[in-house]
Amino acid sequence: MHRLYHQPLSPFCRKIRLVLAEKRIEVQLIEEKVWEKNLDFLRLNPAGKVPMLRMNGLILAESSAIFEYLEETVPEPPLLPRGAEARVEARRLMNWFDDKFHHEVTANLLYERVNKKLEGTGYPDSRKIQAGSKNIKYHIDYMGWLLEKRDWLAGNMMTIADFTAAAHFSSLDYVNDIDWLRNKNVKEWYARIKSRPAFRSLLSDQLSGFVPPDHYTDLDF
Amino acid sequence: MHRLYHQPLSPFCRKIRLVLAEKRIEVQLIEEKVWEKNLDFLRLNPAGKVPMLRMNGLILAESSAIFEYLEETVPEPPLLPRGAEARVEARRLMNWFDDKFHHEVTANLLYERVNKKLEGTGYPDSRKIQAGSKNIKYHIDYMGWLLEKRDWLAGNMMTIADFTAAAHFSSLDYVNDIDWLRNKNVKEWYARIKSRPAFRSLLSDQLSGFVPPDHYTDLDF
Repeated sequence: MHRLYHQPLSPFCRKIRLVLAEKRIEVQLIEEKVWEKNLDFLRLNPAGKVPMLRMNGLILAESSAIFEYLEETVPEPPLLPRGAEARVEARRLMNWFDDKFHHEVTANLLYERVNKKLEGTGYPDSRKIQAGSKNIKYHIDYMGWLLEKRDWLAGNMMTIADFTAAAHFSSLDYVNDIDWLRNKNVKEWYARIKSRPAFRSLLSDQLSGFVPPDHYTDLDF
Repeated sequence: MHRLYHQPLSPFCRKIRLVLAEKRIEVQLIEEKVWEKNLDFLRLNPAGKVPMLRMNGLILAESSAIFEYLEETVPEPPLLPRGAEARVEARRLMNWFDDKFHHEVTANLLYERVNKKLEGTGYPDSRKIQAGSKNIKYHIDYMGWLLEKRDWLAGNMMTIADFTAAAHFSSLDYVNDIDWLRNKNVKEWYARIKSRPAFRSLLSDQLSGFVPPDHYTDLDF
């Protein structure tokens, strides 16, 4: 069977888990503690990061490269729209969340609260938590604005943009960092995506030492 | 004519400039001082970053999304190989340089030396310069190892992986941060890519207040 090396709350891993599940590709999940710099892992993937996917005799690294590979080799159901114009918008938003949102929000909130504790590298920095809490408001507003005009973030079909955003949101929701009252479009969008079968595996993750809020697994939160 | 909003030494912009030139797509270059947070620019591209490309009535943002759009709409000459296995390797390396190399090297060297001065945000942090100078050695060794077995970084054809790496290297070379004696494969690879017509516009950039070393424009450095 294919193997996905991952960390349960990594949004980059969650994005790939959603893609795999949506395309009905079964994988064995292997938790890799990347901060322990396991030599066997580094030999396979010198970037030392997860997700890493072993599939078809290949070792695949970098989540956006893995996504494009899966989209090319298992095209159904598609997670990129047809037409170059619609595709560039889906990829723009994938990058928006994996770069801008990750840097401004995920790193400040999730990595301060969770990764530092897992890696034993100290306590959360309150200035970063404050910055992340402030920044996420702007992102939720932007998403709400996009969803005024569109059914899904990049247009009228669900795409990798939605999975990428939902991957970040689900990890942040695990540590109760999402204000679901801020924007009804965003809440309604997340409820739709959370109820997909592909989402189930994410909602069943339990991270030792971290208890998610009650609404985390609730489909009618 | 199409318009590319850019910063001369941004490796993300240089990557797209190389792609445009290789595909013979003429653009007008417009320098955008992103740190001034120009409202007209933010309205077009709320991420507030360069490169941003105006083309075919569209506003394109995020360099990897722009690249995929150009590859889909102007397929010749191709910058991704055929076959999913070769494509994932090219995209893995594109991400290696835009994420890992960027974080470990470019941000520590180029941004400390150049961006801080441009933006008026202080002096270079010597610890970051040291970290960047140390990290780049590991990356050059890794590239040298790849080039032992391959003509180009991702295999036997020139791909977006080479342009991405060369974009970072050319910006770092402008501030004389590349030790060309460290690996002969890497030097020979860069000499090959530097002599391509697509590279000319990069080598003619002059950034006020920063003088590149003599070898910067020399094709036989």
